Parts: sequence; C-alpha cells; structure tokens
Amino acid sequence: MDKQAAGSQSRASPRQLRRTTIDDIARAAGLAKATVSRALNGRDEVHPTTRERVLQTASELGYVPQAAAHALRTGRSRCLGLLLPSVQWPWLVDVLQGVADAVSDAGYTLLLFSTAKGEQTEREFVAKVLPSRPMDGLLLIVPPGLIPSIRDLAAHGLPVVVVDDRGHPAELPSVSSANHQGALLATRHLLGLGRRRIAVVAGPMDYGCCRDRLSGYREALDEASVAFDPSLVVDANFTMAGGRTAVASLVARDPTIDAVFAMNDLMAIGAMDVLGDRVPTEVSVVGFDDIAAAELTRPQLTTVHQPLYEMGQTAVSLALDAIEGGTTVQQNVMLPTRLVVRDSCGGQQGDQ
Amino acid sequence: MDKQAAGSQSRASPRQLRRTTIDDIARAAGLAKATVSRALNGRDEVHPTTRERVLQTASELGYVPQAAAHALRTGRSRCLGLLLPSVQWPWLVDVLQGVADAVSDAGYTLLLFSTAKGEQTEREFVAKVLPSRPMDGLLLIVPPGLIPSIRDLAAHGLPVVVVDDRGHPAELPSVSSANHQGALLATRHLLGLGRRRIAVVAGPMDYGCCRDRLSGYREALDEASVAFDPSLVVDANFTMAGGRTAVASLVARDPTIDAVFAMNDLMAIGAMDVLGDRVPTEVSVVGFDDIAAAELTRPQLTTVHQPLYEMGQTAVSLALDAIEGGTTVQQNVMLPTRLVVRDSCGGQQGDQ
Repeated sequence: MDKQAAGSQSRASPRQLRRTTIDDIARAAGLAKATVSRALNGRDEVHPTTRERVLQTASELGYVPQAAAHALRTGRSRCLGLLLPSVQWPWLVDVLQGVADAVSDAGYTLLLFSTAKGEQTEREFVAKVLPSRPMDGLLLIVPPGLIPSIRDLAAHGLPVVVVDDRGHPAELPSVSSANHQGALLATRHLLGLGRRRIAVVAGPMDYGCCRDRLSGYREALDEASVAFDPSLVVDANFTMAGGRTAVASLVARDPTIDAVFAMNDLMAIGAMDVLGDRVPTEVSVVGFDDIAAAELTRPQLTTVHQPLYEMGQTAVSLALDAIEGGTTVQQNVMLPTRLVVRDSCGGQQGDQ
Repeated sequence: MDKQAAGSQSRASPRQLRRTTIDDIARAAGLAKATVSRALNGRDEVHPTTRERVLQTASELGYVPQAAAHALRTGRSRCLGLLLPSVQWPWLVDVLQGVADAVSDAGYTLLLFSTAKGEQTEREFVAKVLPSRPMDGLLLIVPPGLIPSIRDLAAHGLPVVVVDDRGHPAELPSVSSANHQGALLATRHLLGLGRRRIAVVAGPMDYGCCRDRLSGYREALDEASVAFDPSLVVDANFTMAGGRTAVASLVARDPTIDAVFAMNDLMAIGAMDVLGDRVPTEVSVVGFDDIAAAELTRPQLTTVHQPLYEMGQTAVSLALDAIEGGTTVQQNVMLPTRLVVRDSCGGQQGDQ
C-alpha cells in the first residue's frame, strides 16, 4: 500500500493572517503613529529612547517592514527570501535554480540567506536580518532549531513556505517529495534482485523525510515478508564521509550485508567507495536525490529521483499565492518520486 | 616565464564616481525635488504624466534608488546583488557560497539574480530589475553581452565587481584566478610525463580566462620546444556533452593524441567518458576548476584548483571597499591557482 501517492496535495481552508502594522506598534507602545513611522525610518527627530522603545515593540510584535522605497507601483517589495543551510549541498542547487527562475518569471527578486556558518548565522538571521529586511514572503530549507522563530513570523502574517520535510510544524505550507514512495520503490528493486540483508544508511530521524524513507523501506520488507532488523540501520548524517565510516563499520561487524539503501546520494557514493569492486555483483547500492554526481560515479548510481527543480518552483508559486491572494493558505504539496535504475545494483537499466 | 604571478594585485589610483541623486533628476527634468521624491516613492499626489517624466529621467541618468525603508540606521540598503548565469554550473556553487558567507559576515543581504533562462532574463535584469532594486553594489559573473549596460551603471556610481574574466572592460574592478599560471602548471605536468600530442578542449575564446589558459599551455610547449599545433585545439563550450563530442571527433581524426588539457572539469569528465580505459595509461587527462565532482570520477581527475570560495569572498570585500569608502576603486585581484594531481594522468599524486 502506497500511503503517499505520487503528486497528492492536501488543501485546508484558507486562513487569513493579518500583518503587523505601524498602527499596532503605535497602540502597543502608546505613541503617535507619526512618531513610530519616523522612528522606523531612522529619522533624526525621534529621541533615542523613544526609538529604542519603537524598535523593541516592533520586534516583539513580529513587525516586518514593507519595502516602501522600491515599491514604485505596487506597494509591495516584490522580494522573496530563501533561507538555506548551504548552497554547496548538491541537491540544494537544483532547488535553488527552480526558485531563482520562478522568482524571476514572476517579476520578483530573490534574497538569499545561507546559514552555512552554523547556529550563530541562524540566530542573527532571526534576530537582525528578518525584522529589518523587506520581503513579501520567505522560503525555508531549515534545521529544526529555527522552526519556533519562523512560526512566530508566519503567525504575524509573513507568508512562509517550507521546502523538504525536516520536522516542520504541519500548519506551515510546504513542498516535499514522496519520500515514502521513493524508498518503497528502491527497496522493492533491491528485494527483486534477491537481496535480503539490506542496510539502511540513514539521515537524522527528527527529519520527516528520513522517517518517511525508513517507513517506505519497512513497508517493502513487509510486502516481501522479510523481518526488519534494526541493527542494519545506521546514521551517517547525509555526508559522503559519514557514508564511508558507517558502511565500513557495518560490513566489518556484519558480513551478510548484500545491499545498501542510502537516504541520499552522497552517503551512497561514500558506501560505494568503501565497497569498491563488490558493487554491484556482491552488494547492490541505491541512493536518494539523483544529484548530478550520480551519473559520474563508476558504476553509475541507481537512485530515487526527487523533482528538485520543480520543488523550488512550486514553493515560489505557493508563496506568491499567499502574497498576492493576501491570505496564508495552509497547503502541503507532495511531488512524485521515481527510481532511476543505473549500474550500482546490477540488473536492468531504466526508470521505474 | 610566469607572466601572471600567483596572488598578484594591481591597484590603480582611486577614482571618485558620484551617484546620481534626486537633485540631479529634479534639475534634468525641470521639476521640484519634492515632486521627484514623491514620484519615485509612488505616491498618489503626483500626476501620471509627471511621474512618467520623472521615471524616464531617472532611468536615463542611471539613477539607483537607495533602499530608504530598510536603512534604519545607515541610510544604505545594505544589500549586495549577485548576477550569475546559473547556479547549476558546478564551479559557481563555491563562488556563491563564498559570496553568501562574506555578505552575511558584513551584515549585508544578498540579492541573487540568475539569467539561466537566457538573453530575455538578461535584458529584463538590465531594463527593469536593476533600476528599481535597492542595492549598494553588484557582483557579476556575466556573459559578455551584458557588459555595456553594466558599464553604464558603474559609470553612474553603482559599485560593480566582476568575478572571473569573461572579457569585461579593464576599468571595472574584478576578481579572477591565475589562469595562465594554472594552464602552464597543467601542461608542464603533461610534458613531464612524456606527453607530446596534447589536445586542448577549450571554452569560448572571447573570454579572457580561456585566452589566458591557452597562453599558459603555449608557454609550456615553448619551454619544452614542442611546436604548437592549432589542429589540436577544439572548442566544447564548457559542457560535459561538448567535451564528449569534441574529443570523440578529435581522436577519430588524430590517433596520435596522448593527452587532453580541458579548460574545465566538466569537459575533462566528458573526455574521460569517451577515452574510457585508455585513461591514464595511453592518454592523460587534466581539467580546470577542481569542482567537487573531480574526486568522484574513476580515475579521479587531476585538475587545476581555482580558489572559488575565496574569489567570492574577495569580490564582496572589493565591493564593500567601494561602498563604504564611498569611492569606486579600480582594482583587479588575481588569486593563485595550483595543480592537484590525482589519477587521470598517471604518475605521482599531490599538489604542485
């Protein structure tokens, strides 16, 4: 049974969320609207203490300034923000290109924020960048730690769309791919080749995408009446080095392993490094993502294709719906995945 | 002789370029400054004909609006723009991460513009996006066709920095890497292995980087008293497919070829695809860039390492110098390259 049907969409009823205005700040701070406006625009006439009070109140209320200066006609900034961990993650590149093209097609501008430098960048983004930056909406590929702050912003009327399921709250609009289905197809393929001791090289289990990939794997085992063995599941944190280490220690302690299902291509490539000439005759390897590098390895990597470019485009279109409709529509779009069969499992080639 | 010494910098004397102001527009349009300001800020009190006249004049003068709305303290937008052809070009990812990190470290925001959809996106960027977007400076990785428009903007006081040498005018500040030196090292390495029939898989020769890589190749041949044979130079437009096609037809018509120097890694990988098991024993292959994929091929690719991340960081720092110094400093920074020896040429491993 495929619980996450390809291309399924769930739409809840629209929920109007009002953006915090200068009026709200004036009321909360007990000041005239003109004073608040002058303080927010950094004019000199406002006493420093008053300005501090205004900025403090604005921050507490989650005020997001409109970009008046470049809203020549529309009164909107026509900017979309994209927050992502690192552009050097190979699968993110395709999502980013999809976002960039769709933003440009819509006549918007893209503000890019990378938190590659870790938690400090994340905190600064929430504390300083977000409140002072003009954007009509925000797309997020985030570590779960940032979610509470982001939820606050969304509650104050900034349209927010989450790309990829990394444990975000269900009430935020999101775009993901059919992770359960992809893992199901990959594992069925391995079982169909006669593999029975299928190791799972996993990512962090607090990410929804990883939980779904594990559940797809388990469903395929169930179908084939193969018992689930938790000792075959190892975490490698989505990196190639992690994949190498995890698979090296796994095959050292369990020589019966005849296949590896890695939850991303980088870990699969790491696994292939360790397994060497044993791939694909003795051990089959399958990845997840279908990054450009999957065609560069020898043997070429069999993997689950995620429609990454389309995920980026769809995220933009959800954000624009919310911005231009003036409402925040709760909407979780799931795009289909498919298995691309290359050489790393043995057997025939093609899409499944 | 190494004409482009590693890490060399040339600095001309600073040249003050004044930014077009609202005063300039008012004078040119014969209107009051307050009227121009109201028109530019999209207020309703201005007659539509007047507003058109203001916008027209602003455009003619190359006016770049300051982002008043989010310049809470500084009076600057604290935004840097980055225009690039596509984030899916592998070498660009590292430049982009360097730019993103440096922009964030400086407390600035990054506006990202991709012209992946071709000339129409480029024209729209120049005609619509640039005049209406608030940015304190612009970093460019551009097709040469855009250069005239960009030069106009720079002349009107928008700090512009060009990354990578693609035939830009010398008066724009730029960051590049030592292309001549890299090609010299790569070709010397091939000659040192006894290769004499070294094919060049080239990129577009209107790019300065390609001309410099060719001159480095020729200098190494001269040093070794090997005659330059123009029939060994083929263009493959920087793509993997181009590399495949070019090398396939080259080896078909000239079976004496014993090495390939490709002007980027993608074309080198395409060459290796075609040459198969002949690499590295019969034919050596060397690339240029050192993208992440260079370690994924088998044999791993020997290539010229460009300091891509550092090029991104340096471009930001040049732009910030111009912005925060208030002057446009003509400055062309060249960062060093080095040869990373892996397995695709035969011989020993390591950096050279």
